[in-house]
Amino acid sequence: MNDARATDERSLADAVRRGDRRALARAITLVESSRPDHRRKAEVLLDALLPGNATAIRLGITGVPGVGKSTFIEAFGLHAIGQGHRVAVLAIDPSSRRGGGSILGDKTRMADLARHEAAFIRPSPASGTLGGVARRTRETMLLCEAAGFDVVIVETVGIGQSETAVADMVDMFLLLLLPGGGDELQGIKKGVVELADLILVNKSDGDLADAARRAVGDYRNALRLLRPASPSWTPEVAAVSALTHKGIDMVWKTALRHRAALEASGELGQRRAEQARAALWAEIGEVLLEHLRASPAVAERLPAIEQAVMAGEAAPSVAARRLLAAFLGSADEQS
Amino acid sequence: MNDARATDERSLADAVRRGDRRALARAITLVESSRPDHRRKAEVLLDALLPGNATAIRLGITGVPGVGKSTFIEAFGLHAIGQGHRVAVLAIDPSSRRGGGSILGDKTRMADLARHEAAFIRPSPASGTLGGVARRTRETMLLCEAAGFDVVIVETVGIGQSETAVADMVDMFLLLLLPGGGDELQGIKKGVVELADLILVNKSDGDLADAARRAVGDYRNALRLLRPASPSWTPEVAAVSALTHKGIDMVWKTALRHRAALEASGELGQRRAEQARAALWAEIGEVLLEHLRASPAVAERLPAIEQAVMAGEAAPSVAARRLLAAFLGSADEQS
Repeated sequence: MNDARATDERSLADAVRRGDRRALARAITLVESSRPDHRRKAEVLLDALLPGNATAIRLGITGVPGVGKSTFIEAFGLHAIGQGHRVAVLAIDPSSRRGGGSILGDKTRMADLARHEAAFIRPSPASGTLGGVARRTRETMLLCEAAGFDVVIVETVGIGQSETAVADMVDMFLLLLLPGGGDELQGIKKGVVELADLILVNKSDGDLADAARRAVGDYRNALRLLRPASPSWTPEVAAVSALTHKGIDMVWKTALRHRAALEASGELGQRRAEQARAALWAEIGEVLLEHLRASPAVAERLPAIEQAVMAGEAAPSVAARRLLAAFLGSADEQS
Repeated sequence: MNDARATDERSLADAVRRGDRRALARAITLVESSRPDHRRKAEVLLDALLPGNATAIRLGITGVPGVGKSTFIEAFGLHAIGQGHRVAVLAIDPSSRRGGGSILGDKTRMADLARHEAAFIRPSPASGTLGGVARRTRETMLLCEAAGFDVVIVETVGIGQSETAVADMVDMFLLLLLPGGGDELQGIKKGVVELADLILVNKSDGDLADAARRAVGDYRNALRLLRPASPSWTPEVAAVSALTHKGIDMVWKTALRHRAALEASGELGQRRAEQARAALWAEIGEVLLEHLRASPAVAERLPAIEQAVMAGEAAPSVAARRLLAAFLGSADEQS
């Protein structure tokens, strides 16, 4: 890499650190790109910006379409700004396609927040795989933190394993629910309730206030039967109304309480270190599998091998080793 | 491989298929071995025995130590034998060490079942990793099914991610609980309740009968708030007493109902095909990572890279690509 290009990345890094929004947007576009030359530039950029801002608060939020995520994020974001913070809103939506847009990170649904100079909203990166979207979002989070955004919200609608991907990169995970009460399934995927550090029953205003109160009680009972998410924090349930802003300050204070508890116990640092390590191995796995699938010997044999395994005609482990013999060569035969 | 050795494996396969218990035990020892020559023999053996017995019922069961798993498995196993079946009991216990034994698959705790000629009990394989134990257990399950055992129970105490590993190889997952009622956390790991197709509150006899009834009610309420585990089956909760055999026949009938529902919807075949495919990719990932860790260039750089990533000094994705450049060579530089 020649010096001129490296200088470009370093001056981009400086601009990002100064809080230059256009520089931040350019930097994010760079990390979202799959072009190999862009990847190399992104690596120089990230190297220049790390270690980053460990003081940022990272919040994940999920909920079914229609639960009021955008209304909530806008109310919460504006409240955090009112407390003196700078708020970034990112999104993980593996169904997002380039040019097709995504319902997440949609500035029109959070217009007041989007307009604020202390806020930065970015739609989900378009990508082929959840792993690719997660990597890009994590790197974008680092860029936003370097640019001085000290509250980062990552939202998802829960397609595939996107809730787990979000939970793996934030400090606190929020689940937003409708006040359907205990008798209705909420379309929540298996495992998501147990990811949540805070469950919020939204739309608890007007006619739905009683239903919301019952739902809060039902979920509190349910959570008592599950192991707490961490030794430092027991998951909580509360009613809010994003539309009327009821409970928004309570949620903000809860986030600060959660933060203080995890910092006091040392768990915050441990959690982030573990998340970073898991991201390292996830990326290692992704790149290895990319190379595997790109190998002609493997590409030729894979469909038939997968088919045989799925039909119960070949043991998975046996098939795996056969497939890898082609990829790894004679080294594997002797192992 | 010379013909004599292949013939050995094929005659071993024939003996397994005939129901020869010693042959089955030898075959399982073979698949449990890490020696490369044993792996090759195991592959010939598994090839000869597949496609296997798709009619077998595969049940997973977990619960904390002291909940009564062994008592339950013995009662349930003897009941299934009384219904004309042949029952194998396997275990996943990643803490199991060679010569150190394991509390799972302990024949002394299921003495009546262990003695029965229609039952076969095998302790957990000893292995370094959960992935290795899971692979061996899955292959052992295939061997038992080939030997005519048409009910296979896989138990675990829930160390690490062992519940997920068991759920990934069975048709139905049972969670056994104490009748602690709703006010006590049961030491259940996050996510396990949502893996369960059937929750059984054990020891619901004598003084604990009322507490057990309340616990059943609490867990039924909790499950209503979670998405059903599958379109064909809504998770159920019931009280049993393994000691007095109360509810054992009900559990057996529930397992048959679950089986019938999943077969009718086609979900059983889909689930098994997906499990097999996931096992294929899990093994591919394991072998690739083994090779990676064994590479001197990687082994030398990995500790420092992991450290830097965990300290937030290097972006995980950047570090991953740097590490892999050493492993994959110049091919990666041009990608």
